[in-house]
Amino acid sequence: MKFIAFETDHQHYWGVLQGDRIDYYPKLVELFPTLLSVIQGFQFVDFENKMKHSISIDEVNVRPPYIPEKNIISVGKNYRDHAIEMDENRDEKAVPKDPVIFSKSPTSIIANGETVDPHEAITSELDYEGELAVIIGKQGVNFSEEKALDHVFGYTILNDISARDLQKRHKQFFRAKSLDTFGPMGPVLVTKDEVAQPDNLSIRTYVNDEMRQDGNTKDMIFNVPHLLSLLSTGMTLYPGDIITTGTPSGVGKGYQPPKFLKKGDNVRVEIERIGALENPIGEQ
Amino acid sequence: MKFIAFETDHQHYWGVLQGDRIDYYPKLVELFPTLLSVIQGFQFVDFENKMKHSISIDEVNVRPPYIPEKNIISVGKNYRDHAIEMDENRDEKAVPKDPVIFSKSPTSIIANGETVDPHEAITSELDYEGELAVIIGKQGVNFSEEKALDHVFGYTILNDISARDLQKRHKQFFRAKSLDTFGPMGPVLVTKDEVAQPDNLSIRTYVNDEMRQDGNTKDMIFNVPHLLSLLSTGMTLYPGDIITTGTPSGVGKGYQPPKFLKKGDNVRVEIERIGALENPIGEQ
Repeated sequence: MKFIAFETDHQHYWGVLQGDRIDYYPKLVELFPTLLSVIQGFQFVDFENKMKHSISIDEVNVRPPYIPEKNIISVGKNYRDHAIEMDENRDEKAVPKDPVIFSKSPTSIIANGETVDPHEAITSELDYEGELAVIIGKQGVNFSEEKALDHVFGYTILNDISARDLQKRHKQFFRAKSLDTFGPMGPVLVTKDEVAQPDNLSIRTYVNDEMRQDGNTKDMIFNVPHLLSLLSTGMTLYPGDIITTGTPSGVGKGYQPPKFLKKGDNVRVEIERIGALENPIGEQ
Repeated sequence: MKFIAFETDHQHYWGVLQGDRIDYYPKLVELFPTLLSVIQGFQFVDFENKMKHSISIDEVNVRPPYIPEKNIISVGKNYRDHAIEMDENRDEKAVPKDPVIFSKSPTSIIANGETVDPHEAITSELDYEGELAVIIGKQGVNFSEEKALDHVFGYTILNDISARDLQKRHKQFFRAKSLDTFGPMGPVLVTKDEVAQPDNLSIRTYVNDEMRQDGNTKDMIFNVPHLLSLLSTGMTLYPGDIITTGTPSGVGKGYQPPKFLKKGDNVRVEIERIGALENPIGEQ
């Protein structure tokens, strides 16, 4: 199932995407006003067979799937070639032995199609990072790698927009990745039954039709079950938490000379079985 | 005014602390169920004159003031002597030229008096950091230092419990500071009218009656208005967001040999005009 949040007639709804149509049911939206509440109540409702209405996706405004209320936890340098391209000396020693774990503000989330503010007053090194995002569905703490996928609701795409100069200036990554509009996400949440192997998905990022990233989640240094189990060790994960799993090589900073984003660019991230997330860079 | 959240007769309330009594009014708690909703609605209600009930603080269980729904933004190494004590070579170059900005998980928050889990399975370097925490009251973005305090609701105390070994291992600080129970906060939220000078407050941390930290917020490298203005640049701050402003020297890691926390210890953080936050280290 592919859940999608949208607006039509100035009302906010969510529904299930079937081809280019969205099936939905306003009474269900009254009970579960957001996709976050759907995630929290997922095991109890047979959502798919309850939809009475249908609308073309072309007739609606796609909204961000939901705004997390607890955490967006990000894993940095989780693809070997990307860890090396981010190092000043392109040194193999830059490949981390333990996951680099930081967070991204939930206030940065925007929808598919919405404009990324380049924040030109404070950064001149705007960059993209196409990433597989894992959505937690079942609360848990201290769970094993073997049980990790039991805690997953599904997957989506997150473009982890990053200001490289701020990332360097503040040492810790939070601010550089949390400016308003720096979190394009969606357009759909794909339930895990449609993604048997989260660790074998093609992931590509295009800037204005130039393919910049061409990776596969099988090249992660720390795979999804390992990351989830590690993150759950000592820290409870809650339904709606989002784990972004790192980006393959080919970010703008990795090119010589760098290819940073500029106003008027368009960034499209495609992940196999999940879909495509596309956002223009511009001014709001 | 000093707001406090508490439990009595298995019901959750909040009220206003007056000496050792809490004035409260259940009908007001129906309208504003949490102190977060109080912060969000603060300018519209004359809370103090609406309280009809009173109870001794000794008769209740103090609860965490509230759980933030967006961010706890933390500033690291914001006191010169602390930046140097954290450096392996005690080098003055460790004093940051720009604030080190990371985040702490809202899921780590616990109340005054609640037990900090030492997480002995994953850390052997448990440490304390007494910090002044600023609570945002008015949404804003791109505001000046001069306007910064207009966006403040008030202040509280946060003990930024940190696993130093995890902080080093994961490079970024998020996980080391976000384990369950690593965020003792409170006991009260003090409205800003009672704290004319957030940049001139004594701050002290005791471990089992030994004074370990003895600082003053006037020694911050980047003061409160500067931090708020900087953080608001490009990133909207929302009511209920918490900004922790760094810790003075005297953390466990700063001693030679280090004085890390162990089971059975008791940590007490005192900040002038705000109060005292006390938590035992133990097993849950």
